[in-house]
Amino acid sequence: MTKTVKIAILGASGYTGAELVRLLDTHPNTELAILTADRRAGQTLGAVFPHLAQVKAPPLVSIDDVTAEDWAGVDVVFCALPHATTQAVIARLPEHLRIVDLSADFRLFDTDVYAEWYGGPHKAPELQKTAIYGLTELDRERVANARLVANPGCYPTGPQLALIPLIESGLIEPDDIIIDAKSGVSGAGRGAKEGLLHGEVSEGLHAYAVASHRHAPEIEQGLSRAARRPLLVNFTPHLVPMNRGILCTIYVRTVGEADAGTLLSKLTVRFQGEPFVKVLPKGTLPQTRHVRGSNLCLIGAADDRLPGRVILVTAIDNLVKGAAGQAIQNMNVMLGLPETAGLALQPIFP
Amino acid sequence: MTKTVKIAILGASGYTGAELVRLLDTHPNTELAILTADRRAGQTLGAVFPHLAQVKAPPLVSIDDVTAEDWAGVDVVFCALPHATTQAVIARLPEHLRIVDLSADFRLFDTDVYAEWYGGPHKAPELQKTAIYGLTELDRERVANARLVANPGCYPTGPQLALIPLIESGLIEPDDIIIDAKSGVSGAGRGAKEGLLHGEVSEGLHAYAVASHRHAPEIEQGLSRAARRPLLVNFTPHLVPMNRGILCTIYVRTVGEADAGTLLSKLTVRFQGEPFVKVLPKGTLPQTRHVRGSNLCLIGAADDRLPGRVILVTAIDNLVKGAAGQAIQNMNVMLGLPETAGLALQPIFP
Amino acid sequence: MTKTVKIAILGASGYTGAELVRLLDTHPNTELAILTADRRAGQTLGAVFPHLAQVKAPPLVSIDDVTAEDWAGVDVVFCALPHATTQAVIARLPEHLRIVDLSADFRLFDTDVYAEWYGGPHKAPELQKTAIYGLTELDRERVANARLVANPGCYPTGPQLALIPLIESGLIEPDDIIIDAKSGVSGAGRGAKEGLLHGEVSEGLHAYAVASHRHAPEIEQGLSRAARRPLLVNFTPHLVPMNRGILCTIYVRTVGEADAGTLLSKLTVRFQGEPFVKVLPKGTLPQTRHVRGSNLCLIGAADDRLPGRVILVTAIDNLVKGAAGQAIQNMNVMLGLPETAGLALQPIFP
Amino acid sequence: MTKTVKIAILGASGYTGAELVRLLDTHPNTELAILTADRRAGQTLGAVFPHLAQVKAPPLVSIDDVTAEDWAGVDVVFCALPHATTQAVIARLPEHLRIVDLSADFRLFDTDVYAEWYGGPHKAPELQKTAIYGLTELDRERVANARLVANPGCYPTGPQLALIPLIESGLIEPDDIIIDAKSGVSGAGRGAKEGLLHGEVSEGLHAYAVASHRHAPEIEQGLSRAARRPLLVNFTPHLVPMNRGILCTIYVRTVGEADAGTLLSKLTVRFQGEPFVKVLPKGTLPQTRHVRGSNLCLIGAADDRLPGRVILVTAIDNLVKGAAGQAIQNMNVMLGLPETAGLALQPIFP
Repeated sequence: MTKTVKIAILGASGYTGAELVRLLDTHPNTELAILTADRRAGQTLGAVFPHLAQVKAPPLVSIDDVTAEDWAGVDVVFCALPHATTQAVIARLPEHLRIVDLSADFRLFDTDVYAEWYGGPHKAPELQKTAIYGLTELDRERVANARLVANPGCYPTGPQLALIPLIESGLIEPDDIIIDAKSGVSGAGRGAKEGLLHGEVSEGLHAYAVASHRHAPEIEQGLSRAARRPLLVNFTPHLVPMNRGILCTIYVRTVGEADAGTLLSKLTVRFQGEPFVKVLPKGTLPQTRHVRGSNLCLIGAADDRLPGRVILVTAIDNLVKGAAGQAIQNMNVMLGLPETAGLALQPIFP
Repeated sequence: MTKTVKIAILGASGYTGAELVRLLDTHPNTELAILTADRRAGQTLGAVFPHLAQVKAPPLVSIDDVTAEDWAGVDVVFCALPHATTQAVIARLPEHLRIVDLSADFRLFDTDVYAEWYGGPHKAPELQKTAIYGLTELDRERVANARLVANPGCYPTGPQLALIPLIESGLIEPDDIIIDAKSGVSGAGRGAKEGLLHGEVSEGLHAYAVASHRHAPEIEQGLSRAARRPLLVNFTPHLVPMNRGILCTIYVRTVGEADAGTLLSKLTVRFQGEPFVKVLPKGTLPQTRHVRGSNLCLIGAADDRLPGRVILVTAIDNLVKGAAGQAIQNMNVMLGLPETAGLALQPIFP
Repeated sequence: MTKTVKIAILGASGYTGAELVRLLDTHPNTELAILTADRRAGQTLGAVFPHLAQVKAPPLVSIDDVTAEDWAGVDVVFCALPHATTQAVIARLPEHLRIVDLSADFRLFDTDVYAEWYGGPHKAPELQKTAIYGLTELDRERVANARLVANPGCYPTGPQLALIPLIESGLIEPDDIIIDAKSGVSGAGRGAKEGLLHGEVSEGLHAYAVASHRHAPEIEQGLSRAARRPLLVNFTPHLVPMNRGILCTIYVRTVGEADAGTLLSKLTVRFQGEPFVKVLPKGTLPQTRHVRGSNLCLIGAADDRLPGRVILVTAIDNLVKGAAGQAIQNMNVMLGLPETAGLALQPIFP
Repeated sequence: MTKTVKIAILGASGYTGAELVRLLDTHPNTELAILTADRRAGQTLGAVFPHLAQVKAPPLVSIDDVTAEDWAGVDVVFCALPHATTQAVIARLPEHLRIVDLSADFRLFDTDVYAEWYGGPHKAPELQKTAIYGLTELDRERVANARLVANPGCYPTGPQLALIPLIESGLIEPDDIIIDAKSGVSGAGRGAKEGLLHGEVSEGLHAYAVASHRHAPEIEQGLSRAARRPLLVNFTPHLVPMNRGILCTIYVRTVGEADAGTLLSKLTVRFQGEPFVKVLPKGTLPQTRHVRGSNLCLIGAADDRLPGRVILVTAIDNLVKGAAGQAIQNMNVMLGLPETAGLALQPIFP
């Protein structure tokens, strides 16, 4: 495929929108056609994100000002709008568009569960039926054929990649899974909130949304599908004074004689040849700084001192594999492009 | 008691030594008599720690240069020397001295366990028999009568304060305890190691010493005593890009109908009137930044979504309640001074 | 004086208000009587600042709900309200109150200059005539007799302490002063602004308000008084990814043969015996981390390679000597209390 | 040119070496042939820098183990060895190699000046005569023809780019230049030094090497050449708690009627069409976070309040335009490759 893919990004003034632009700038087959940002309409991208001032990009527009003709010139839409506003927007998009939605609006298949966790009825239940959950490595074929891909949440990406193959293979107890998750602040977005100020976040650490975070049902949906029965997990997120990165320390109980080595072998085989999911040798655990800026998901494991217990650790950059990178990966799969196009960057350190 | 207590600090050039000086400067009953630091002998305290240049303190000396006469003028010794070097030093100290040891050298009662975890035989096994483990709130009376107090490790302080009363009361399963611990970098000391450089630590997060950290047997010793039988725990430490603070997220399984409320009630009663251990109301979880610079240990709890599971969270400043503060608290108890003397500082934020 | 001083803090929900509470908690002669915070009225101090939950303090109230009777029970008011709202508030306070205003509203003696820089006419010009600018070390006597003290801005404190004695003594050229200032983020307050988010501030650095910062005329007022003629200075503030601290690197041209040593000698004599202003020996330059949490102002100097030029460096904690600490110092002077009362804390490091 | 360029990196275990690998991984025309790191010889690149574990790279070797045959397979050498060790190494390299040296060893043309600032005689004075100082934009032609390019220091890059054109055009006074420089910690390298620990560097700020930093004579060399006479500058570096980035705030006095607009116009014309040097419109000043991870140098200017004074600000990533990026840019020019090859990455933010 050599035709240039015309891209629209809805909600380009947030961190996820900016990261899409940064990565797509290295993509050999794409061109930015439309960037929307209602409150910043009329401004250049460089005015909103000075670090992107050198990127060739159209000015920001209000989504209401995008004409039918404009849409006709677009092939793929990345939707990075706030949760709960996205369903109505996507429902109105022309049929020829293929869509990767980075919000949570189409991630939960069961619209009742959606309503329970997101505080209101689903606004596009028919469309929901067509949405494919885009954890690329685990559902590549369905992603390839989808019109609408629901891009996974940042937290659910790592744990599902590590746990779904293990649950499917019966190596771990599905009813005793504890996910202690630690995220950098960019996962909370660019909204001006007191709790995200430098003075509030730096030099400290805390758990939040304990037993009530919206990514819990998303993880449970994936693990339940793997287990072929409903299950619950513990999921406890923490806010860490860093900008990027999610580390999940996952405590599991193994079945039978399985230990960390067994689990790593299974995962190594499962992800063999994958460009972005890397299973580390036993004894080596991933660090978020080893994936910063890249689309990598690293997975490691160690035996616990408690017999029959294993500690799994996953690391991703929440803005890349946890958002914009995986979205581009999904687009590549949808369009039959090389899966690593626009995603070949090595991590940046220090 | 109005007599001035003469203090010696052995190993005054580390972060723990500096923190002892900072806190003792607010103590109405103490005076710094001797500060040792072999490699910095001859220098002023302000040369080693410019933030302490205004403190009235003697110059640093080599411990070998402290004379019998010097020791005669000392009442209390805080020993902040590296692990494994302390046993021999303390064994040689004059009998009249009362000692709070901040190293790990006297924390493990079983010298075989010590030898296994610290890589060599205990060098003062007779002295070990006299040492009292100084988790002040849980052993105040024995601390009061001790000559030698082994000050608890930074990580073990919070989890033991929260878990020992719950195990003793039979409210939680002692065999299914997971402690996911997150620490700031000062806990690793001031030694110049590549892994502690700003460039290596900031903007990232990782687990370390998984299933092999020396604070695991220390925690297990305390919990086993509470359970009246040997038990093991999961203990997984993480290094967080901040200078001070330890947050422990502890996953427990309750017994019978007990839930977070039950556990909090028990802890609230247990620590009623304690000046430094504060149990938060249900739904409020502690943050490390709320204890920074203070001797507080905050404990919170929340019900998990998994039935029968509760999430406990503890927060301390690793250099204060996790080291120098608790050491001073122990000294106050040993000498019959007001327990909050030198420890009345509120946390510093932001 | 042994009577307990009853304190009101207006605007207790900002960082400066919190810092006043933290420091006053160590003051032997004061008691918190009234804390106002209009938007947080009805809440406890611990709800707004969990790190202060252990402080004995009244709940927050709206200033409009403070009765005449309430005011009658108060001796001293610290006013930590936003700029431009303070003049009207203070004008209405009962006559018996002594006031330290931490806003900028009374710092500029010339109400025309105020109007020019603060975007509107002064609302209490008569009161302005009675206000004393409270750079304590340089105006102790007038502070002692003042009813209303205008507490200096955070940036102006260090440079004025270093430069005023040097200008007065004719050792430096008053018309060629460059002040390159670097501040932590708490100086910008707790308001939820995009530019102060952790994601925006950490891992980067920038100059702001170049040639237009409101602290420039405040510095110029002080230096002009010293020079006995109007003068202008360069003042260029930068935002640094840290919470506390201001470092000012000041480039001056000396008069005659004066060099760094000459300047340091002059300052050493000038500040001899001062508990909070410390002049470092030649070759030693201050760091912000050496004053964090304390009321210290450190001053150092070095000869430049350019003949006739000297580099002065000052360091303070912007929330302490740059705000709450100096305010308490002023109160102590106003009331004849020991000047270090409530301000004896050593810096906290790391 | 379509032939693949074979690269050797000497000193691949430092931050600069790692950054060369990260950037070259995006270069379409290069291949890593040899990586040396004496103390890490035998290890994989991923063992030393886990974030680069996915890069196709040879294992690290000792430079003494590189054979003549090995060298025969190499085209270009990047030398990232410590200062003072490089002259001898480069003097021994085979003649066919083209070399970009990232150390300071060949930056000072006058070997007497070198000896004075680097504490010993130059070890390859003949080679020095052939070295070209590689500030690419200002000396492109001579770089193109050089065998040995001395890559500029991190600090000197921004100020020279901004000041040399202004001095050459006579718009500023060359004898009254003050460069207040602020750098992230990666500029100090990966060596394990107490002063670079997270606990020492974070949450604080200080000036260092005042009037004695080795980059001062390097800057003066460039500015003197522009002025056609020897001149001195003030250069005052500061260490900022961030990993990457250098911001230089430069205080200059203009000649005649020139103001910030005049200076910006001159620079805009001078750097027109340059891919990496961007002159911002008047009123916009650069921030280090807007260049992080990229080879950009941003230049801005503002009028001072002092008549006849202008404030220039430059921002670079010290590891990219200040080291590895400019080195690759120089290599591209030397080999006639597109100058942006391997350097097309947009900055990463947040």
